[in-house]
Amino acid sequence: MSAPASELSRVKRLPDRATYDAASIHAVLDAAMVGHVGFVTSGRALVIPMIYGRDGDVVYLHGSVASRLQRTLANGIDVCLTVTLVDGLVLARSAFHHSMNYRSAVVFGRATLVRPDEKAHALRVISEQLAPGRWDEVRPPTPIELKQTSVLRLAIEEGSVKARTGGPIDDEDDLGLPVWAGVLPCTTAWGEPLAAADLEVVLPPSPSILVRRLS
Amino acid sequence: MSAPASELSRVKRLPDRATYDAASIHAVLDAAMVGHVGFVTSGRALVIPMIYGRDGDVVYLHGSVASRLQRTLANGIDVCLTVTLVDGLVLARSAFHHSMNYRSAVVFGRATLVRPDEKAHALRVISEQLAPGRWDEVRPPTPIELKQTSVLRLAIEEGSVKARTGGPIDDEDDLGLPVWAGVLPCTTAWGEPLAAADLEVVLPPSPSILVRRLS
Repeated sequence: MSAPASELSRVKRLPDRATYDAASIHAVLDAAMVGHVGFVTSGRALVIPMIYGRDGDVVYLHGSVASRLQRTLANGIDVCLTVTLVDGLVLARSAFHHSMNYRSAVVFGRATLVRPDEKAHALRVISEQLAPGRWDEVRPPTPIELKQTSVLRLAIEEGSVKARTGGPIDDEDDLGLPVWAGVLPCTTAWGEPLAAADLEVVLPPSPSILVRRLS
Repeated sequence: MSAPASELSRVKRLPDRATYDAASIHAVLDAAMVGHVGFVTSGRALVIPMIYGRDGDVVYLHGSVASRLQRTLANGIDVCLTVTLVDGLVLARSAFHHSMNYRSAVVFGRATLVRPDEKAHALRVISEQLAPGRWDEVRPPTPIELKQTSVLRLAIEEGSVKARTGGPIDDEDDLGLPVWAGVLPCTTAWGEPLAAADLEVVLPPSPSILVRRLS
């Protein structure tokens, strides 16, 4: 267990489940597809789902926040990005000891609009996070398309990871109860690729789709 | 398309994808397992994953926020709860038209600690959301366990749902490009139940586990 960078990141409840090192934070960010981005607007917290991609200690974010905050963002805005993966339900003999296996990263930093000359790179990073290899299979963005796309650049200042693994931890007195206990694992599962109705050229799904399905 | 209750909930980008009616909001909340709860603390937004359960226009939230904010919560705190389901990757012929199929609800309200006499009900609602039927299979909470558990009560004041479905919408000029386009669907998949190492009584997984697996 490492130490939090500041009180902002310190995990208050069940601190044994927390780590603060960059490698652990990066591993959670790299495993997911959607993050929840929180920021203060008109004195209230607003939380918006965004797709993202990580490049070192920078996270590029794509979604409606960027256009909503276009003006605010000129000087940057403090955001909290939280990414959560659910790994299973933990089913105990007692209601009280039910739990969830999960991995969650909470990172803090200042988000700014990416510079125009960084935008193509940022979009490629986001694309690679969602569908590795896809970027090189498709038509790249034109200068006009790049201009129409807002991307945020979040430099991670600090963060934490909280995770739970393993089976239920029941009270000794409950171990003999006639109720099944254990873990029901869950994952993200990919289905059969559905070809677009207007697919003029009869093609099998490209390599990136197959790679993603097997991930 | 219904109307937002106030500017707080108005979806600014791609407003055609937005609805504001209670039934749509409830449907998204009911389909997921984890929400991301944002609130302002020390002038910054903090976003924490929490499990939850819905009962009418009330959402009960369970997780570390409750204990962290125990004192603050005496008078209630404004929160934003966002719940997102990813339904698939939308793979277009151009990088620009890539998208994601998803459903996302953003709700606002004031969160308070549940009253002691409401806590058992709240926990049952949360349990039913995660594993329908499980509550009646297991040992119920004791008064001491109830006391150790913090639950937030969020009365939904307003909210919005944003969703995308369907295949890629490519530029006409790109339709003939020799690249596969379509949707790669994704869902949450349940694995084989793993019995606890200390399961003394040899039992099959209880009905609630089987129901959850088939959901």
